[in-house]
Amino acid sequence: MKTRAARAHHGSVSLTTVAEDTGVSISTVSRIVNGESGRASPETVARVEEAIARLGYRPNPVGRALRQRASRVVAMLSPNLDNPAMAAIAVSTEAALRAAGYVMILCDTHDRAELQDDYLQAMREQFVAGYVMVSAVRSRGLEETLRRGDPMVFVARHNPLGGGAYVGIDNRAAGADAADFMLARGIERPAVLMAAQNVSSTQERASGFIDRLVAHGIPDNAIRRASGPGLSHIEIGYAAAKALVQQGGWPEGALCVSDMIAYGAYRLAIESNVQIPQRCMLVGVDGNALNHWIAPWLTSIRIPYESFGGHVVAQLESLWSGEPTSEVRIPHEPPMVGLAQKATA
Amino acid sequence: MKTRAARAHHGSVSLTTVAEDTGVSISTVSRIVNGESGRASPETVARVEEAIARLGYRPNPVGRALRQRASRVVAMLSPNLDNPAMAAIAVSTEAALRAAGYVMILCDTHDRAELQDDYLQAMREQFVAGYVMVSAVRSRGLEETLRRGDPMVFVARHNPLGGGAYVGIDNRAAGADAADFMLARGIERPAVLMAAQNVSSTQERASGFIDRLVAHGIPDNAIRRASGPGLSHIEIGYAAAKALVQQGGWPEGALCVSDMIAYGAYRLAIESNVQIPQRCMLVGVDGNALNHWIAPWLTSIRIPYESFGGHVVAQLESLWSGEPTSEVRIPHEPPMVGLAQKATA
Repeated sequence: MKTRAARAHHGSVSLTTVAEDTGVSISTVSRIVNGESGRASPETVARVEEAIARLGYRPNPVGRALRQRASRVVAMLSPNLDNPAMAAIAVSTEAALRAAGYVMILCDTHDRAELQDDYLQAMREQFVAGYVMVSAVRSRGLEETLRRGDPMVFVARHNPLGGGAYVGIDNRAAGADAADFMLARGIERPAVLMAAQNVSSTQERASGFIDRLVAHGIPDNAIRRASGPGLSHIEIGYAAAKALVQQGGWPEGALCVSDMIAYGAYRLAIESNVQIPQRCMLVGVDGNALNHWIAPWLTSIRIPYESFGGHVVAQLESLWSGEPTSEVRIPHEPPMVGLAQKATA
Repeated sequence: MKTRAARAHHGSVSLTTVAEDTGVSISTVSRIVNGESGRASPETVARVEEAIARLGYRPNPVGRALRQRASRVVAMLSPNLDNPAMAAIAVSTEAALRAAGYVMILCDTHDRAELQDDYLQAMREQFVAGYVMVSAVRSRGLEETLRRGDPMVFVARHNPLGGGAYVGIDNRAAGADAADFMLARGIERPAVLMAAQNVSSTQERASGFIDRLVAHGIPDNAIRRASGPGLSHIEIGYAAAKALVQQGGWPEGALCVSDMIAYGAYRLAIESNVQIPQRCMLVGVDGNALNHWIAPWLTSIRIPYESFGGHVVAQLESLWSGEPTSEVRIPHEPPMVGLAQKATA
């Protein structure tokens, strides 16, 4: 891992080392490190970047932080602003940054690598003080930004390139809790609804769920899985539920790896006159605030997104002052049972 | 109105006029106009600002546009990112700006004047090319930004200081359509649920609704109104429904001036075992995408927020090129009937 190697060597490799290794002047290396490669030839840029990676050079974090701190703006890159969970993370982080004297800029990446890169470039031109990457995807711009050592905190989904400051829940444990909840209610053959393009966070929820069921003696091949294509979880939920039902009818219960997936499955249930939760108990993950008001049929493992913002700011402040950062795992809450579920209990 | 006066005088009052009137140098006036008042005394700033307002000075819009166009960033200031309608406006505007080569910054004002001013100041320091003000509130910073002639488009709620480029629906007509919808279904005594702190957009929906009912011979004092305090429409909806029911039981139908207010009222209905829409038909305004999936009980007058972005960008482009702007009224859609409503029809 480049990032880990860089961290290990930090302090021993300087701009001078890179300049000597490549035969390029210190000022040119400095400009390339700071992204001002306009005047250098592509060959020089490539040679310097290769040496930076190989030698594990990392810019002085304090000098960088002092320079960047002049800016009061932090950029959040997030997919799908119309997902209530993403909105909750944005609201919480905006409030915590504001309290710390910063202003948050929000960019909607639509979960797409090329848009993520467009925004990373635009935010860099605005000299933002740091980046909050919610559910980041692997991209060239992400790799470059990390290599420059720009302050960056990953939220909800791990850094797709590995390592880095992170704020999120223990997704495997959340999946396991959903399994326990169903087993305690006598549901012995629950199913899982998920996305076809699984990402680390939701994949971990599904495997935590399945592993716990298997640990309780349920054969792995008795646990039905269904998935749907695309990036919209609500549409994925509908398609996955449809596939599941076509294969073998409605299950007694299903883990939906996000509340949005549960919302999609619910639409199929009302179209089919299937009572939720009486006929099929849906258990989501997120605990969207909306559930209390209009989804009394849903049980959901609540993620306390309102507390994420404070941890994100603490991680940014560690990065700015050159202190080590770590993974912050915020405890999820026990399954929150909806009003309709309570009524039938 | 200062703004109108400024517009009328535009061209006849120059920096020189302001400098001569106040006895302050042209370069100092220019700096104050451009917000760099750091070196001038507060008295000088006050004198110059007074003269600018009195004389109706307005900075050259073309020169300003050319200078600002260097920036590819447009700021959207919006209340409550966790309101799906606000999220839909943000998603649509972000996509339209991106297609036009711009990047959108999103700032959450929480519907509060002091936060709106903080963000206006921060965005100004970022040299943004323009502002998209969603549901703006009256504030000192808004007044100053308008006086400087910075490109600004108001969305969903009119400029609280009057005038300006606007994109929204005809809210009175939407309210009237809700009245017709209820009357056609034999509901002769519908109620209205709204916010205690009404703003232009929702106030217009309520009065369009009431006026249409009165025009159909329903006595004004037979139309029950209830409201709730605060800024969260979902909590307002719950409180307003509670107040209404305590006064005189559930009505046969109610206009909820936003879908979020309908969501709040729905929670009271499920707590009270009142069937929606069978016992009480709730009609909202917004047509949130979520309704299709999880609110089959709701009829809603859909606002095509997905088309707002294109109009917002067109208005900004007019402002940038010094062309006149106007109010763009986007047609709302007929009431969209939920699945549960269809089933009982």
